[in-house]
Amino acid sequence: MKYRIEKDTMGEVQVPADKLWGAQTERSRNNFKIGSPASMPLEIIYGFAYLKKAAAYTNCDLGVLSEEKRDAIAAVCDEILDGKHDDQFPLVIWQTGSGTQSNMNVNEVIANRAHQLAGKTIGEGDKTLQPNDDVNKSQSSNDTFPTGMHIAAYKKLIEVTIPGVEKLQKTLSDKAEEFKNVVKIGRTHFMDATPLTLGQEFSGYATQLEFGIKALKNTLPHLSELALGGTAVGTGLNTPKGYDIKVAEYIAKFSGLPFITAANKFEALAAHDAFVESHGALKQLAVSLNKIANDVRMLASGPRSGIGEIIIPANEPGSSIMPGKVNPTQCEALTMVCAQVIGNDMAIAVGGMQGQFELNVFKPVMAANFLQSAQLIGDACISFEEHCAAGIEANHDVIKKQLNNSLMLVTALNTKIGYYKAAEIANTAHKNGTTLKEEAVNLGYVTAEEFDEWVKPEDMI
Amino acid sequence: MKYRIEKDTMGEVQVPADKLWGAQTERSRNNFKIGSPASMPLEIIYGFAYLKKAAAYTNCDLGVLSEEKRDAIAAVCDEILDGKHDDQFPLVIWQTGSGTQSNMNVNEVIANRAHQLAGKTIGEGDKTLQPNDDVNKSQSSNDTFPTGMHIAAYKKLIEVTIPGVEKLQKTLSDKAEEFKNVVKIGRTHFMDATPLTLGQEFSGYATQLEFGIKALKNTLPHLSELALGGTAVGTGLNTPKGYDIKVAEYIAKFSGLPFITAANKFEALAAHDAFVESHGALKQLAVSLNKIANDVRMLASGPRSGIGEIIIPANEPGSSIMPGKVNPTQCEALTMVCAQVIGNDMAIAVGGMQGQFELNVFKPVMAANFLQSAQLIGDACISFEEHCAAGIEANHDVIKKQLNNSLMLVTALNTKIGYYKAAEIANTAHKNGTTLKEEAVNLGYVTAEEFDEWVKPEDMI
Amino acid sequence: MKYRIEKDTMGEVQVPADKLWGAQTERSRNNFKIGSPASMPLEIIYGFAYLKKAAAYTNCDLGVLSEEKRDAIAAVCDEILDGKHDDQFPLVIWQTGSGTQSNMNVNEVIANRAHQLAGKTIGEGDKTLQPNDDVNKSQSSNDTFPTGMHIAAYKKLIEVTIPGVEKLQKTLSDKAEEFKNVVKIGRTHFMDATPLTLGQEFSGYATQLEFGIKALKNTLPHLSELALGGTAVGTGLNTPKGYDIKVAEYIAKFSGLPFITAANKFEALAAHDAFVESHGALKQLAVSLNKIANDVRMLASGPRSGIGEIIIPANEPGSSIMPGKVNPTQCEALTMVCAQVIGNDMAIAVGGMQGQFELNVFKPVMAANFLQSAQLIGDACISFEEHCAAGIEANHDVIKKQLNNSLMLVTALNTKIGYYKAAEIANTAHKNGTTLKEEAVNLGYVTAEEFDEWVKPEDMI
Amino acid sequence: MKYRIEKDTMGEVQVPADKLWGAQTERSRNNFKIGSPASMPLEIIYGFAYLKKAAAYTNCDLGVLSEEKRDAIAAVCDEILDGKHDDQFPLVIWQTGSGTQSNMNVNEVIANRAHQLAGKTIGEGDKTLQPNDDVNKSQSSNDTFPTGMHIAAYKKLIEVTIPGVEKLQKTLSDKAEEFKNVVKIGRTHFMDATPLTLGQEFSGYATQLEFGIKALKNTLPHLSELALGGTAVGTGLNTPKGYDIKVAEYIAKFSGLPFITAANKFEALAAHDAFVESHGALKQLAVSLNKIANDVRMLASGPRSGIGEIIIPANEPGSSIMPGKVNPTQCEALTMVCAQVIGNDMAIAVGGMQGQFELNVFKPVMAANFLQSAQLIGDACISFEEHCAAGIEANHDVIKKQLNNSLMLVTALNTKIGYYKAAEIANTAHKNGTTLKEEAVNLGYVTAEEFDEWVKPEDMI
Repeated sequence: MKYRIEKDTMGEVQVPADKLWGAQTERSRNNFKIGSPASMPLEIIYGFAYLKKAAAYTNCDLGVLSEEKRDAIAAVCDEILDGKHDDQFPLVIWQTGSGTQSNMNVNEVIANRAHQLAGKTIGEGDKTLQPNDDVNKSQSSNDTFPTGMHIAAYKKLIEVTIPGVEKLQKTLSDKAEEFKNVVKIGRTHFMDATPLTLGQEFSGYATQLEFGIKALKNTLPHLSELALGGTAVGTGLNTPKGYDIKVAEYIAKFSGLPFITAANKFEALAAHDAFVESHGALKQLAVSLNKIANDVRMLASGPRSGIGEIIIPANEPGSSIMPGKVNPTQCEALTMVCAQVIGNDMAIAVGGMQGQFELNVFKPVMAANFLQSAQLIGDACISFEEHCAAGIEANHDVIKKQLNNSLMLVTALNTKIGYYKAAEIANTAHKNGTTLKEEAVNLGYVTAEEFDEWVKPEDMI
Repeated sequence: MKYRIEKDTMGEVQVPADKLWGAQTERSRNNFKIGSPASMPLEIIYGFAYLKKAAAYTNCDLGVLSEEKRDAIAAVCDEILDGKHDDQFPLVIWQTGSGTQSNMNVNEVIANRAHQLAGKTIGEGDKTLQPNDDVNKSQSSNDTFPTGMHIAAYKKLIEVTIPGVEKLQKTLSDKAEEFKNVVKIGRTHFMDATPLTLGQEFSGYATQLEFGIKALKNTLPHLSELALGGTAVGTGLNTPKGYDIKVAEYIAKFSGLPFITAANKFEALAAHDAFVESHGALKQLAVSLNKIANDVRMLASGPRSGIGEIIIPANEPGSSIMPGKVNPTQCEALTMVCAQVIGNDMAIAVGGMQGQFELNVFKPVMAANFLQSAQLIGDACISFEEHCAAGIEANHDVIKKQLNNSLMLVTALNTKIGYYKAAEIANTAHKNGTTLKEEAVNLGYVTAEEFDEWVKPEDMI
Repeated sequence: MKYRIEKDTMGEVQVPADKLWGAQTERSRNNFKIGSPASMPLEIIYGFAYLKKAAAYTNCDLGVLSEEKRDAIAAVCDEILDGKHDDQFPLVIWQTGSGTQSNMNVNEVIANRAHQLAGKTIGEGDKTLQPNDDVNKSQSSNDTFPTGMHIAAYKKLIEVTIPGVEKLQKTLSDKAEEFKNVVKIGRTHFMDATPLTLGQEFSGYATQLEFGIKALKNTLPHLSELALGGTAVGTGLNTPKGYDIKVAEYIAKFSGLPFITAANKFEALAAHDAFVESHGALKQLAVSLNKIANDVRMLASGPRSGIGEIIIPANEPGSSIMPGKVNPTQCEALTMVCAQVIGNDMAIAVGGMQGQFELNVFKPVMAANFLQSAQLIGDACISFEEHCAAGIEANHDVIKKQLNNSLMLVTALNTKIGYYKAAEIANTAHKNGTTLKEEAVNLGYVTAEEFDEWVKPEDMI
Repeated sequence: MKYRIEKDTMGEVQVPADKLWGAQTERSRNNFKIGSPASMPLEIIYGFAYLKKAAAYTNCDLGVLSEEKRDAIAAVCDEILDGKHDDQFPLVIWQTGSGTQSNMNVNEVIANRAHQLAGKTIGEGDKTLQPNDDVNKSQSSNDTFPTGMHIAAYKKLIEVTIPGVEKLQKTLSDKAEEFKNVVKIGRTHFMDATPLTLGQEFSGYATQLEFGIKALKNTLPHLSELALGGTAVGTGLNTPKGYDIKVAEYIAKFSGLPFITAANKFEALAAHDAFVESHGALKQLAVSLNKIANDVRMLASGPRSGIGEIIIPANEPGSSIMPGKVNPTQCEALTMVCAQVIGNDMAIAVGGMQGQFELNVFKPVMAANFLQSAQLIGDACISFEEHCAAGIEANHDVIKKQLNNSLMLVTALNTKIGYYKAAEIANTAHKNGTTLKEEAVNLGYVTAEEFDEWVKPEDMI
């Protein structure tokens, strides 16, 4: 491989000649060989592209950067956002906890690429842009990285998570309507209980997700606050007056999302409670989705020796050894996602609680876990919706048979003959394997006519 | 010990003669010898007292319970709320997951106590109240227990948690004001960084708690929704028309808190996402408080070989072996509470995700963990505020010495001579153990006058 | 209330006259009003009683304490271990993270009680014992508290946890034998699969617990190492030569458990990885028990519209509204315990990871969570064994019906006619609601005789 | 793109013409668009390659597979293990929870590639191998996937995790020796305490990792047990006699690791407690490493306003805004890894606890989290060792200054003048900002000569 020499304040470093990054990126590559390369999420890099461009515009507006430099920076940022340089960000999550090296990776790529765009060869001639003095002007890793995190997280929630959950919520809600007249046996403690409609069951699922979406949206305002302008410790040292508000406005404009500058920059650097808060809502969604997916697969269980009250789509052969087997695979993918998100919530809490003084240095791990959760929940909801929920059908024969068989219909008699006599009827029928009606009449508590009038599943819902 | 005989649908049981509970409570005592007795939180029992009284009033208003029975029930509920029967609830958290046995415990105590209040002897004469048919009328464990959970949790948040956090938030905010002119060295990555004021540092803490309180309050609407009226599976079987709305109004009236009936009773029985959601905010507070308490003890570390920038109150001898040692014990109590709350969050998620069909049967464990967290955070904030935060003082001598000593003041030169030359100055001073000014002048990058004019800590905040 | 005056190095404190504790305990009571009073587990106090007695004997043997003082200390320790002073330890978990105040609580109670036993009045006459100089001789909170933790934890595992799990393991193993000929349908993905015996199913449960017990026992050696002798920072300052080994021998003798002195005292004070390690095994047991309890309740589900392959004991009325309902309440108690233990594991990890320098100051919260988990798992296994597992019966009629009905018996044909033709048979029978045999013959892939010879559930196990 | 047609029991599917996979893989690609493509860890695929080859050999030995087919299968497995087909496994973690689709992916690739190796074109001519009947012979996803998991996990622990931790343990142990005479102040509660040597401090770290390695090795026997031979539900249906033992021997031979067949196949399919157990030890290591890394960065804090007792290597410029700043970046990478591993532990617990009946369907998520943790801990230990631990130096000047300044040296006087007088000396010196010796003499408790003789830091360790 061919190399060129790059320099930073510590001296010279050999960098692969065909790469745009510089000395600090290369040092990080060598010093942090932990896990797969390039694990730092690209979404964070794109977040940086928005903010570097916004900083350049703001610096120019406020008179501390020339228009030429502004445009040079912006041009590369646009290329990055177009996905043209995805292979220029080789660093890992497991680097410095402030993400400094990824900030420098972006600074270096922008500076070197701008040099190319200016028609020059990297490493030759006057530098078109200085990575620290120009591209990073009025910035610090300490405020850029959390800003990049917030941009990436907010975008992901808006573009992937919320649409995914909402699509599934809508379908479950539609199913609640579709099944509103399908009376079936209820189950509590896994045991037969009084009846309800299949639609009512699905309305519970739809309501869970409705609450989850609301909880997630409640967290967006905190996430919309950006650290940029705080620089090294939150004081905004080395930024021109008015910079923080203006740069947030540019980010809002470029990203199309309602970002504002953080009211308190010290909190915004030293704590990432906004991530803890917002991921708490993702965890809530995971808890809800786990319940829903579990119910669906149990209701669909069988085909002959399970509950079998609903039929779910058969998307693929289910077993490599058992011919003809069809499994609730979408439920499984979804519940695995839930397990991951619940684990991620803990990783984020552990990172979030350990900030020290002016900086939390668990930024990359918190960001990576958050983005994974947000992506997985959104994707899994879409997948579950398309390949499972939308195709759920009621298995009317099974539902009817199980309903009529149920001993818990006896509950309707509580208000007529009291709890204790009703219990005696149910216990006797259970012991004898008979019907409630037979035993109710045998025991002399009601007549056959009364039974038929009082015990109507369709009136018990 | 003397016993009397009580009966339920399964037969006779011996109950201690001096106790008010009945057969089902006694069965549970015998069948669930897990952990300490009476671990079911009393707050849940009080929640039941509110709802049983409310149910009696509603049943009476709707014509299904006599005024005599209503008043008999209400009288015992008032006694329970006065704390007169705290020793009549011997059951444990680790019982049936619907809390049925604690519901029956309350029903039995109310029925037997009402019998006493009617001047009769328990077990003799016509029953004044039937536990199931009267006290539990229009109810099921499945809707009463979650209602009791919500009442207990909401009350605890309003009465203990939020006031505690707000008190601490106020004090931290006052300290931010008090220390607003105390310029000190900043620290990032545990390393010396550019300066800020001690007040700015505290403003970050205050802001964290402000966000935490807001996040917690965002969860209250979900928690204000009550399951009562759903009965066994959410359909409201065996309740009179209009019961659910009215009973929530009575609970709101009796408790003084803004409870409403749940819009969807199926969700309210089968999922406890409101607890997951609300405890997520408690976890966020734990994450914030851990950061704050950690900073405080590190800032107070020493007295001679630590950071020592603040002085915290000495409340007790710190060591059984090292004379004269004073320790940041309030920080330790608080961070231990944070560890507990983070653990509880996981217990609640694990319970919340495993609801099945029409019922979640992890109700008691979720309720107990929630109430513990809510109490501990409230109490620990008060304790930390009173015995630590309110008494924090700046250690001006130490702060000044460390500030003037700092190499990171060089950052102020970035905008004058560029990042790279500034780095050279800092590195040289570090190597030689000299001051920035000496090396800045030696290296010929600035004059002494320029240095004094450009590098002023008080201008860097 | 009447008070007396007690003193410590900070001055005078009023203490309730009828209590044995002294100034430092009272300060802690006043300064840490967090959660319920006296939450510090008594098991820890008993652990202290063992070690205080052992320290007195060792100090005497090594010539630094008189026989009179040794005996005075030992006499009170014996009283404490007899449970005579349980109400003298009012402190909470949420105190200093080293547990210093509980150490002093024990020191003070021993000193004052010894004074009484010497026939004197507390606060009058020459002190029989000095809390710090005599009772705490050759000790520090920093080594006594972790020693008390280890004693308490080890005892609990040996006396409660392991016997409980072993009892349940034995019963499940017996059931595996009892059910070894009961051929039933298997289920994977909640869907019907190839057959196995009910005994094989139970053998899986028994094996899980066997592995869990082994994992737990693997952790005992680490837990058997005691910090005592390390004093303040691990160096053993102020202890006579040979003290650490001898004191561990006395503790082993008094407790009857194989304790030894920790090979490295710095680790033993600054980290509690032994707790993390051992509780990891408790978490593993929780994971196993959750699976087992879930299976049991699903296998017992019904009675008419569930799986119903086993019958579990009916221990109590199951519902306050549905007469005659019986629920798998022991499964629910057990799975709630599992949720708690999994949460506790996280609390312990969060505490364990945050030790600093020479001391971990999350000792009380780690100890309390550990002891709760160890108690709950032991108790819940006994409860589940007695009231559920021991009484499980096979429901032969249901099992037989479901077995014969199964489409997955077709798997036996794979080796005869290949996976693809077998799949065709199963799919056709599923579509037509017919039997495998009918379709196998119809499709011409096997004769009726071949089918009967090849597809025998009892040969498929 | 060009496509060919592949078929499975559900019909035809279009597959990219240049890919080796077949119908079921393609269905999975289309049905599970969740997260990044190809997220299923390659280590699992390699585990499959070992087991497919072993199964082919065993099947051949036992007379159910021809030598030609055996060799055809083995040849492709060897190619896979050589990394020649890494791009043929496009599936994601978030598929069916049994990993069936990845099992089929491997079966299909082997069958199609063998066809190529036989000189034929995929999709044309008689099939060289049937994916289900030949490649999957005597297997099911239900036993192959957990076998692949165990192979991958065991290999990773042996090849990456344990060597990494051992290397760091060795270095910390060497440092303990190197620093054994460097007497320094101890710190408990972040406060100055009695002295110890820097070597003793490091011996604590080394001991933590020693225990962690031992704990991890304790889990290997469980992990060495392979499910293969259990097929669909653990009974071993459709396997020739002796298959399970022999196939494990082949896997052991091919992999060079001590695998054996699982004693109980029902446990091995339905539970993954071996993963829970083994990852518990990884979590313990994370807890230990977090403590160690935290201590290192706090001891190295400064350079001027921190503790500064050790010097760590400066590997890269630390700040994009503060010139000359050097940060403890390796500590940060390591603690971020710890946060991740602790989160992963929860994801694994949540997956492990939710197995149902004969199968746990959280296999892929458990495997992926485990492998990530094992890789990250191993890599991060190496990185931390190379770039930080190995280069740690004592900062003797700072250490000496802080030691001599310490008030806690007074503890040495406890055994001479008692705790209470010693406390008075320390408190007075603290108040007056004087030395212990001055105040000890002033108060008249000791002479200057006694003080010098009794208070020697080097005798206090």
